[in-house]
Amino acid sequence: MNYQERLRGARLELEGSRLDALVVTHLANMRYLSGFTGSAGVLVLGRRETVFFTDGRYRQQAREEVCRARVKIVNGKPALAAASEWLARHSHRRIGIEAAHLSVAGSSVLAQSLPARAKLVRSPPIVDRLRMVKHPDEIARIRAACRLGSELFGYLVKTVRPGIKESEVAGELEFRARQAGAEQMSFPTIVAGGARSALPHGRASSAALPARGFVVSDFGVILAGYCSDMTRTVHLGRPVAEARSAYQAVKEAQQAALEAARVGRSVAEVDRAARKSLQIRGLAKFFTHSTGHGVGLEIHESPRIAAGEREPLKAGMVITIEPGIYVPGRWGVRIEDTILITASGSEVLTPCPKDLITI
Amino acid sequence: MNYQERLRGARLELEGSRLDALVVTHLANMRYLSGFTGSAGVLVLGRRETVFFTDGRYRQQAREEVCRARVKIVNGKPALAAASEWLARHSHRRIGIEAAHLSVAGSSVLAQSLPARAKLVRSPPIVDRLRMVKHPDEIARIRAACRLGSELFGYLVKTVRPGIKESEVAGELEFRARQAGAEQMSFPTIVAGGARSALPHGRASSAALPARGFVVSDFGVILAGYCSDMTRTVHLGRPVAEARSAYQAVKEAQQAALEAARVGRSVAEVDRAARKSLQIRGLAKFFTHSTGHGVGLEIHESPRIAAGEREPLKAGMVITIEPGIYVPGRWGVRIEDTILITASGSEVLTPCPKDLITI
Repeated sequence: MNYQERLRGARLELEGSRLDALVVTHLANMRYLSGFTGSAGVLVLGRRETVFFTDGRYRQQAREEVCRARVKIVNGKPALAAASEWLARHSHRRIGIEAAHLSVAGSSVLAQSLPARAKLVRSPPIVDRLRMVKHPDEIARIRAACRLGSELFGYLVKTVRPGIKESEVAGELEFRARQAGAEQMSFPTIVAGGARSALPHGRASSAALPARGFVVSDFGVILAGYCSDMTRTVHLGRPVAEARSAYQAVKEAQQAALEAARVGRSVAEVDRAARKSLQIRGLAKFFTHSTGHGVGLEIHESPRIAAGEREPLKAGMVITIEPGIYVPGRWGVRIEDTILITASGSEVLTPCPKDLITI
Repeated sequence: MNYQERLRGARLELEGSRLDALVVTHLANMRYLSGFTGSAGVLVLGRRETVFFTDGRYRQQAREEVCRARVKIVNGKPALAAASEWLARHSHRRIGIEAAHLSVAGSSVLAQSLPARAKLVRSPPIVDRLRMVKHPDEIARIRAACRLGSELFGYLVKTVRPGIKESEVAGELEFRARQAGAEQMSFPTIVAGGARSALPHGRASSAALPARGFVVSDFGVILAGYCSDMTRTVHLGRPVAEARSAYQAVKEAQQAALEAARVGRSVAEVDRAARKSLQIRGLAKFFTHSTGHGVGLEIHESPRIAAGEREPLKAGMVITIEPGIYVPGRWGVRIEDTILITASGSEVLTPCPKDLITI
């Protein structure tokens, strides 16, 4: 990972925003800029210097992991308090904060040692935006994570059967993921059968899968720090005509959004393509969430693929395309791929079958 | 779960703090007061009414789960924006926020519809404090989670051997946890062998366990919403005298802290007991973190068992006792139990052997 290039990119934005420093408190952003994988710390990106503050638990780990930043181990006070003192000593005045990630209480701690002439300023999302377009080494890692994620689908199909608990199916996927080297799942595994498939976020529960009905499974792994994400819906027993046609509608909507995902198009256009496809069949009202999101160090990152968002797609972005329809109390269907936007179109990184599988 | 009693408790504190409403944005606090287990929402606790705002993805789930609060599904804007409008309509003036949990950006959204006479006020941690003392039904769930967590140690001992990858050991534990009904692990499983045992937060990696040395394993499950937490350290091969004596020192420090954990004592005294025990053997400088933390809906919750904290222990608190020593680049040892503070002393909820096991 080329931390030097990343820091250079962030500093350019820093200057563009007329900030003297940016206080990075979001862990994924910290990792992106420094390599630190722990769960507590503060990175201060000055115009010239970069300093990383963490506590004694991370002394060895920070020394091993952090690239191109001075590491300061802070004892007996919050890392943010040490960052505040450092900023005061270095006479930084316009100090950017990550307003979406820093808590109100944290911002007070950060302000506590600053002189009156210094000011905390809401920074534009500098690092979140840099992270949207992936570097080749990041794409390689996401590709590997998605490959592993896709392999899990085979185990899912073998495991799913009437009467098995959702949590057992999830456990099987997670075990296979671990065996293949996954650091962890990228979010709580969703396995939702029968009426539970109508819950867009139906985490695997102790419920047994029914004899007949949809099973939505949404899962991903983290491999070398990077996430995968995909959803497939299978059907237990013979689907009735309504279920077949609902599945077909979601598949077509997903295809429409995949085709709309092109360099230069806005993310809203991609969302619109999925929604319009469902609208034609009178199903748009059951599509109750956005069409997708960026994937990388985090399972949900910028850009959001949603109405009202203006971000144009760029080559190197990795996003999900995941329309779904949900009829409360009855059933739900979702199909999701993670894709890479390329100069000439897009590449599906989770190439699993999408024809309806009945079990 | 008696949500009525919880809401009543929170309202008493609300009045004591002269707040007209509390805006609950921390998910665990929201779950505690309402039963909602999803991952997005805002709960507004007024003096008389309770309103829960979430988005379309959670329509069905909120209807099924949320107790004693009106559910409002918000589309096309953030739940916080809808909460802001509601607060403005109901003429609330002193509006408490959870400053440790609400982001700077979130607080702006919450303020956007408020009239000039209304004010966002940093609330004391009302819900976090209520959650410190567990109700009997919560204790039953934590007990069950800890029982399952403890059973996993048997699998750990059977799985650990020279050459096996840390991630495979973790995978085995996680698979067994799932089979026994765990919803998920309560944090990324730590399996850290040899020199990696010196990393207090050494998440299971792809490294193979060495022929000889300590293996620290720190893991927990979530069962019916509640967490377990425990750490044991085993030794591969025959330990040298230094390793044996280090292990013994940590075991004694843990015992000293367990004995200090009594109703009425402050959490700082418990921390001091562990530290003092290590100090006598000249090892206190290697104990680089605090002695423990509360456990419940979250793996880390109040109180912190650390120097400088003043909280007195109360019957019904569930905390961890987890001293450790870490010699960077060489080895580490940690022993951790989750305990329940009772009227007459404490009860260890994770009763696994603590004599050094060599494998």
